[in-house]
Amino acid sequence: MKKHNFNAGPSILPQSTIENTAKAILDFDGIGLSIMEISHRSKEFQAVMDEATALFKELLAISEGYSVLFLGGGASMQFAMVPFNLFEKKAAYLNTGTWASKALKEAKLFGEVIEVASSKEANFNYIPKQYTIPSDADYFHITTNNTIFGTELHEDIDSPVPLVADMSSDIFSRPIDVSKYALIYGGAQKNLAPAGLAFVIVKDSVLGKVSRAIPTMLDYRTHIKEGSMFNTPPVVPVYAALQTLKWMKELGGISVLEKINKEKAALLYDEIDRNKLFKGTAAIEDRSLMNICFVMNDEYKSLEEEFGKFAAAKGLIGIKGHRSVGGFRASTYNALPKASVIALIDAMKEFEKAH
Amino acid sequence: MKKHNFNAGPSILPQSTIENTAKAILDFDGIGLSIMEISHRSKEFQAVMDEATALFKELLAISEGYSVLFLGGGASMQFAMVPFNLFEKKAAYLNTGTWASKALKEAKLFGEVIEVASSKEANFNYIPKQYTIPSDADYFHITTNNTIFGTELHEDIDSPVPLVADMSSDIFSRPIDVSKYALIYGGAQKNLAPAGLAFVIVKDSVLGKVSRAIPTMLDYRTHIKEGSMFNTPPVVPVYAALQTLKWMKELGGISVLEKINKEKAALLYDEIDRNKLFKGTAAIEDRSLMNICFVMNDEYKSLEEEFGKFAAAKGLIGIKGHRSVGGFRASTYNALPKASVIALIDAMKEFEKAH
Repeated sequence: MKKHNFNAGPSILPQSTIENTAKAILDFDGIGLSIMEISHRSKEFQAVMDEATALFKELLAISEGYSVLFLGGGASMQFAMVPFNLFEKKAAYLNTGTWASKALKEAKLFGEVIEVASSKEANFNYIPKQYTIPSDADYFHITTNNTIFGTELHEDIDSPVPLVADMSSDIFSRPIDVSKYALIYGGAQKNLAPAGLAFVIVKDSVLGKVSRAIPTMLDYRTHIKEGSMFNTPPVVPVYAALQTLKWMKELGGISVLEKINKEKAALLYDEIDRNKLFKGTAAIEDRSLMNICFVMNDEYKSLEEEFGKFAAAKGLIGIKGHRSVGGFRASTYNALPKASVIALIDAMKEFEKAH
Repeated sequence: MKKHNFNAGPSILPQSTIENTAKAILDFDGIGLSIMEISHRSKEFQAVMDEATALFKELLAISEGYSVLFLGGGASMQFAMVPFNLFEKKAAYLNTGTWASKALKEAKLFGEVIEVASSKEANFNYIPKQYTIPSDADYFHITTNNTIFGTELHEDIDSPVPLVADMSSDIFSRPIDVSKYALIYGGAQKNLAPAGLAFVIVKDSVLGKVSRAIPTMLDYRTHIKEGSMFNTPPVVPVYAALQTLKWMKELGGISVLEKINKEKAALLYDEIDRNKLFKGTAAIEDRSLMNICFVMNDEYKSLEEEFGKFAAAKGLIGIKGHRSVGGFRASTYNALPKASVIALIDAMKEFEKAH
């Protein structure tokens, strides 16, 4: 049976990423050795790192003055690494969900943290819009897409202080104006690569301004200077990332992906709004294009478990909602085909007819 | 042509690790999805993590009171993570090479560091034996195998203060008495898994004694509490590690590997000592079983480049010495077959005859 992979992350990757990575593990580039057992300093792997970095910059139209880094450790490490590098006296955070809260909590180890706004009182079902960013903050931190709650900031906002964004779950889903940001980071395991890799886009000029001594591995300048090769990088995830970047370029780039993502999301949100059994959980204007959260309407609440089983029997994988929201969550990352969205919609319609 | 992989790291892995990892990337456990695109919280991956942790403990006979962790970031991150968790006022380091020096340098960010001894004056070609470990140090740090210089500490030493060891390049090469250590760490990319993974063996009772606030991801207790799953772990390297651990167990465990490693190393060192063209660089009693360094004898110095090409033409990969030592380095990790060592010896003999 065909599987439709709606996992929230680690999540579906392009078939070419999967196949090429498996191939490189058996024999990398025809050299007779696995990519897992050659030096990261070999010319073959250096070429992978260089091409991945260049393509990453090209696809997001990142201009001079910014560096792109591939690091180990995931986005959770960035929650600390950002303040290590940027936090001197005060930082401002927008609290839009579980991950935003974790980033904010971590920053508190470094000094005064201003929570400019929070949607916690509404179980994070919207993105606050009315808030003031303190002009004396060292930076302002946002989470552009909230995987668990299915909300997304659809614009690149203006900030009077350096803007830092966790884009773990919506990077490469839409064109972004990188010049509005001081730093963008994320775990790779949604739209880019398997787990074990974080990406960082950093404006070089924002670094070197804090007075603390930063441990070498936590200092972005270490990795900029060494082109993400200060230490042995996560070789397989970087190789897989390169395959995904190539796939995005071949498809026509981020604008094409954005168009497809909007189509997929519109189809599913339309069905959620139409179908008498279901309702969306996020504020309509903040609905995520990547993580689509919905629950059973109150009068059909008792059918929740049954729909879960019904969907699973049709090969619809990973649609159980996070426990913080309940119900269902369909993650519609770049690599998820429109056919999978249609399969889910068909299941929702069929289930509606049966009830 | 058959390749003989003497790379220093990332380095040769068992063929079963390579093949099973490639297979799981195409279809994990027959579930119809890649291991790269399923949740790390799935029962399938949880079983991988649990089995890898249990087998790691079993193979090294790690007793109760110790935790085994799989973390992102590599050994270089541990150079900082160790002091974050253990350094209160003073730490002692034995300086036996480039990596030991880096670990020591990193610790200096945290307070007073005593270098108890160093072999730097002899280009790190031996392991100092005469030194005093300050009894008021928070811990004593050693590097058991020095990949670049080809020296190795063959015993588990006694220390009056908690003993911390970087075992990146000799873990699993010989049985160790873990009870003598407070903490053992290393990058996985030698005897265990592809790059992007670090292992940590930590005595639970040594933690929680420092007064600083430790960033969440840098606090070993975070990862102990969550069974290495506080955040998304490096899924593919952990899966590959499990395959290598299974391979070691099937071979008969670490004692069997030690026997084979001793045989391989003895064969090669004997040839280095016998062959008129070559000489070893490390003090005989400290010769590493994992990284065998040798140079041309002075009168044959001019043949160095030629031997490199001669060996490469015979499929002997990765034997160029590190620039700090020059000459040649044959890394003979667990997965390197005896046949590869014999192929190198044959090449050395043939080259000797020709000159």
